[in-house]
Amino acid sequence: MEQLKVIKIGSHLINDAPALEEFLTIFTAIEGKKVLVHGGGSAATEIAQKMHLEVKMIDGRRITDSETLDIATMVYAGKVNKTIIAQLQAKDCNAVGFSGADGNTILAQKRLVKEVDYGWAGDILKVDTEILEVLLSRKLTPVFCAITHDGKGQLLNTNADTLAAELAIAFSKNYATDLYYCFEKKGVLINLADDNSVIENMNSIGYEDLKIQGIITGGMLPKMKNCFYAVQNGVQKVCVGQPEMLQNSTRLCTTITN
Amino acid sequence: MEQLKVIKIGSHLINDAPALEEFLTIFTAIEGKKVLVHGGGSAATEIAQKMHLEVKMIDGRRITDSETLDIATMVYAGKVNKTIIAQLQAKDCNAVGFSGADGNTILAQKRLVKEVDYGWAGDILKVDTEILEVLLSRKLTPVFCAITHDGKGQLLNTNADTLAAELAIAFSKNYATDLYYCFEKKGVLINLADDNSVIENMNSIGYEDLKIQGIITGGMLPKMKNCFYAVQNGVQKVCVGQPEMLQNSTRLCTTITN
Repeated sequence: MEQLKVIKIGSHLINDAPALEEFLTIFTAIEGKKVLVHGGGSAATEIAQKMHLEVKMIDGRRITDSETLDIATMVYAGKVNKTIIAQLQAKDCNAVGFSGADGNTILAQKRLVKEVDYGWAGDILKVDTEILEVLLSRKLTPVFCAITHDGKGQLLNTNADTLAAELAIAFSKNYATDLYYCFEKKGVLINLADDNSVIENMNSIGYEDLKIQGIITGGMLPKMKNCFYAVQNGVQKVCVGQPEMLQNSTRLCTTITN
Repeated sequence: MEQLKVIKIGSHLINDAPALEEFLTIFTAIEGKKVLVHGGGSAATEIAQKMHLEVKMIDGRRITDSETLDIATMVYAGKVNKTIIAQLQAKDCNAVGFSGADGNTILAQKRLVKEVDYGWAGDILKVDTEILEVLLSRKLTPVFCAITHDGKGQLLNTNADTLAAELAIAFSKNYATDLYYCFEKKGVLINLADDNSVIENMNSIGYEDLKIQGIITGGMLPKMKNCFYAVQNGVQKVCVGQPEMLQNSTRLCTTITN
């Protein structure tokens, strides 16, 4: 099977223009088939503030009302996605921007209301990679923002980590797929105070231990959940670390396998 | 040669949700290969106002400073484009959104500074339809906003009428291409006070006469310039009128040939 890399970048790169530029140089240099997924960064919050919109939170989670969805669509699918595409073109990486609505690639549904109505938040139902594979075979590189749609005309705001995992799983049918989560740390740390205390390899048994010991907590839990969801559904391996892990396979990072 | 239709819709449809919905139903029903180009509507101005940005004008023309370009990118490539894509998907028209940066389809340059610096306004240099033709052959429908790029990482704000004309010209190499400009009137009028005084057929000789007589003036002049530019560069015909002209070939509209 041919190799494919799905690479997700988070806010710390989107918010920092020189760091983003540096990442895109690393990304362009990756040989073979690749897909980029990006989050939104803080621009959406800044624009909401400039427009004097209140950010609605319940239990620390943001609620996507109609105005928040509009801003997310404008910032993620508009400014962030097109800025990345233009910069990749300047580096001779022929990229094409996608939301899940484009080509009906990612169908989602509004998150079901249990205790909390999260508004226009979308949970992914189905990924169709056919048109993406046509583009990849012609040396084009899809770049996804985390906006999806419900097939009935409604756009939905989706978690970018989850979207990257779902894309990688769908590609695994036809490609030997690796998933990379680039974030600010060198990997999953055993000691948060020591940036070099990276757990180099993790499987689901080791992960359960680390959870019980209280070493993996907080914001890392949903990220890890996406990692294991991916490797348990066909993705070869998931790597978590800084963008340099894409350049140099000996670079410290956390590699997750089933 | 196979037929292709390039259809451009303007602000009056983008600003009016029920009218846009109605247009998209008509658009979906068009058989064969088609490409949609949309302008931005008034949303960009509204958002600029909410963010307390001043709209800069020189001689009645808007100047695209960096903040205006950001808003144009957010609104045109983000909100407007993705809203149209999601609505088309709901109608089973499998659409893919494009800016000129995506797939390097439309390369432009910053408008040269003569008397006025129009800022980040782009004049089109080159259109590459290859990837668009791949999508069209797979029954996908490209939907363009009027944001382009300069190949050096800079996004540019481009006139949507001109972008539609340049796309139609580029497609004319491989398709028998018709270009449709949908606007609020039934066509080019001989008497602005009479909505039914449509000039049904126009060629370049007739057009020169109408200009001399002062019948075509103001905002219609740049639109007509794009029409004749298109038919003089390979486009079969250009039709100007209301969306219904796409449904019914006997419907009143202005048909422009060389």
